[in-house]
Amino acid sequence: MRFLHTADWHIGKKLHGYDLLEEQADAFQQILKIAKEEKVDAIVVAGDLYDRSVPSVEAIEVFNRMIVEMNLQEKFPVLAISGNHDSSTRLETGGPWFIQSDFHLNTRLDQAFEPVEMKNTQFFLLPYFEPISARLYFDNEEIRTIEQAMKEVITEMEKQFKPDMAHVLVSHFFVAGSEKSDSETKLMVGGLDTVPLSLLESFDYVALGHLHGKNALQAENARYSGSPLKFSLSEMSQKKGVWIVDTVVDKTTFEFKEITPLRDLIQLEGSFKELTTQEFYESIDRESYLHIQLTDRAVIPNMMNQLRQIYPRVIGVERLFGREVKEKNRAAKKEIKALAPTELVNQFFSEVTGEQLTQQQQTWIKDNLAALHQAERGK
Amino acid sequence: MRFLHTADWHIGKKLHGYDLLEEQADAFQQILKIAKEEKVDAIVVAGDLYDRSVPSVEAIEVFNRMIVEMNLQEKFPVLAISGNHDSSTRLETGGPWFIQSDFHLNTRLDQAFEPVEMKNTQFFLLPYFEPISARLYFDNEEIRTIEQAMKEVITEMEKQFKPDMAHVLVSHFFVAGSEKSDSETKLMVGGLDTVPLSLLESFDYVALGHLHGKNALQAENARYSGSPLKFSLSEMSQKKGVWIVDTVVDKTTFEFKEITPLRDLIQLEGSFKELTTQEFYESIDRESYLHIQLTDRAVIPNMMNQLRQIYPRVIGVERLFGREVKEKNRAAKKEIKALAPTELVNQFFSEVTGEQLTQQQQTWIKDNLAALHQAERGK
Repeated sequence: MRFLHTADWHIGKKLHGYDLLEEQADAFQQILKIAKEEKVDAIVVAGDLYDRSVPSVEAIEVFNRMIVEMNLQEKFPVLAISGNHDSSTRLETGGPWFIQSDFHLNTRLDQAFEPVEMKNTQFFLLPYFEPISARLYFDNEEIRTIEQAMKEVITEMEKQFKPDMAHVLVSHFFVAGSEKSDSETKLMVGGLDTVPLSLLESFDYVALGHLHGKNALQAENARYSGSPLKFSLSEMSQKKGVWIVDTVVDKTTFEFKEITPLRDLIQLEGSFKELTTQEFYESIDRESYLHIQLTDRAVIPNMMNQLRQIYPRVIGVERLFGREVKEKNRAAKKEIKALAPTELVNQFFSEVTGEQLTQQQQTWIKDNLAALHQAERGK
Repeated sequence: MRFLHTADWHIGKKLHGYDLLEEQADAFQQILKIAKEEKVDAIVVAGDLYDRSVPSVEAIEVFNRMIVEMNLQEKFPVLAISGNHDSSTRLETGGPWFIQSDFHLNTRLDQAFEPVEMKNTQFFLLPYFEPISARLYFDNEEIRTIEQAMKEVITEMEKQFKPDMAHVLVSHFFVAGSEKSDSETKLMVGGLDTVPLSLLESFDYVALGHLHGKNALQAENARYSGSPLKFSLSEMSQKKGVWIVDTVVDKTTFEFKEITPLRDLIQLEGSFKELTTQEFYESIDRESYLHIQLTDRAVIPNMMNQLRQIYPRVIGVERLFGREVKEKNRAAKKEIKALAPTELVNQFFSEVTGEQLTQQQQTWIKDNLAALHQAERGK
C-alpha cells in the first residue's frame, strides 16, 4: 500500500510571538493536495499534532477543521499518534467514534498492540509514552528507560507480526544517531529517552515524529518526516515536506515530496542603511519571517520600529560586531542551554565544590530528574 | 417517544475543595440505570457537561468514559448542548463523528436550526450562546439581549415545525420567574440574559439546563432537570434526579425519577462537645459532606482538625453565636454578592455622590458590562 508520512504539526505554535495558524492551515492544504495527487491509501501523522497539552481555542478550531476535511470530507483513512507535546487524554476524546471512519488516533500504550491492518500492511501506532506506563503495562519494575521499555514493546509487537504482510511502526521518539535542531523540546533527561536504531530492524518502515528535520536520521527503514514548517532558525536551510511510502513486503520504498511555506524563514545580513534601502528590500520577500544580522557598530535609535515598518515579521536582530564580552556571555549561555540537565548539575556541583559527583550521587540525580520530568508530564 | 432529561453535570466541579468525580461517576451510573429501566429512546443533556471551559485531565477521563458507555456501549442516542460553563470549541472536537452513532452534541447557534427528528418528535438543540452570536447569525445589529435573540431564534425554529410532530426545545438559559440557588454562576448582566416563559409557548416540552433545582420553574411545558448532585448548601433539601418525558403531540407528560447521592450534603447543629460524642456521630452518616453550625461561644483549640478526625468531609463551620458585628458584616457581604452588577454600580454611585444614575448613564453601564462579559466569555 501507499501512504503519506507527516508529523510534528504543532498546531498553535508561535514563532517568536507570531501566530503561525495561517501558515499551518496552508501547509495542511499542501499535504492534502499531495495525498490526492499521489493517490495514497492513508495519511500517517507521527505525533505532536498540537504544540501544547492545552491548546488555545483558535488552535483547536484549525485542528478540528483539518481532521474533518482529511477524514470525513476527503475520506482519507488517518493513522495518528499523540506526541510528547500533546495531552494524550485531551486528544483521546472522540477516538472511539473516529474509528468508525478509519481515523485511528492512538494515545495510550496498550493501543499499540492492536495493529491496524490495511491492504498488505500492519501498522503499529505507538504513541509517545513515559517509562512509567511501560512499567505498569508490562508489570515490570525493572523498566526505567525508554530503551528498556522499547525492547519489551517491540517484542510484544513482533508476536503479532503476520509474515506475509509488511510491518510499519509509527512512533515519536529520539532515535540514537539522529540530528537535532533547536525547535524540539528536550525530551531527554540524561539520555533516558534514546532508542537505538538496532531495535527497529524488524520493521519495513518506521514513520517517526519528534525531530523537525527530514534528514535527522538516515536509516534504511526509518525516517523522520520533519515538521511541515520551519520552527526555528536552525531549520532555516531545511527542505520541508512529507514522505510517500510504498510498502511492498521486504522491499519498501519512500520518496520525499516538498511543500513550500506560505511565508519562509530567512536570514539577512547587512548594515541598517543597506537593509532599509528601497532597492534592497524590494529584491526580497518582505513578508517572510526574518532574522536580521546587523553589521553596524553605532547605536540606531528606534531601530526595531523602523525595521518593522519595512519588514513586518522580524523575529530577531543580532549585532554581529557587538562588544566582545557580550558575545562571550552569549556563547556561554548557549552552551549551558545545550547541556542535558544531568550535565548541568554535574557542572554546577564541580564549580561550587571543586569535586566530582560520585556514582551514587549521579544515580540519585538521574532518578530525581526522571521523577520530576514525569510529574511535569502528568499535568 | 420517551426520553430522559438531565443537565448540569459539571464534571470536575469541586465542593469546597473536595473532588466530586467519584460522586459524579456514581450519579451517572444511576442515570444510566433509570434510562434502561424506563426504556427511554434517548438521553437529553441540557448543557454544562463540564464545570470549566478548560477541564482537568481527570475530569476529561471521567467524561470520556461516560459518553462511551452511554452512546457506544449502551447504544443510547444522546441529544446534548454546551452550557455557559463549557467551552463550545473544546467540546466540539469529535462532534461530526459522534453523529454517526446518534450522539448529537450542538455547540454552535447555527446547529439549532436543523432539528433532530426521532420517532414522533423534533428536537431543537440550542446551545448556550451570547447575543453577539445571534447578532452575527441573523445579521441584525438590533439584537442586544438574550430575550431579543430568543425571539428571532424561536421564530426561525417555528418555521421548521412539522405540524404532526411534537416539538422539544433543549436549552440552557435563565427563564423569567425561575428560582436560583447559590451554585449557578451568574450569567446575568443587569438582567440581559432572561428569557420570558411566554416565548417558549409553542413547544410541547422545553428541557432546560442552568438552574440546579428541579423545581426552579413550574411551567406546564418546561422544566429544569436540576443537577445530579447537590453543589451548594442552598440545595441541601433539594431532591436530585431526572425527568422522564413522554412526547405525545399536544399531550406531553413528564415524571421525576430520583437519584440518591453517593455522599449527601447535610447540616449539623450543636455544641462541639455534642458533635464529638460517639453516640451522636455514630447516629449519622459521617461520610457525608457536612456544614457544621457550632453553638459554642468559647474558643476551641485545633477545632477543625478535631472535627475532621471524626467527619472527613467538613465543608464549613459556622459559629451561630459569634459577635453580633461579625454577623452583620457577613449579612451585608452576602447581600452585595447577591446583587446584579448593574445594581452594584447603581448602589455604589448613589452612596458616593448622593445622586441617582441617569437613564443614559445606566445604558452606558449596561453596554459596557455586556461588552466586558463578552470579552470574558471569548477567552
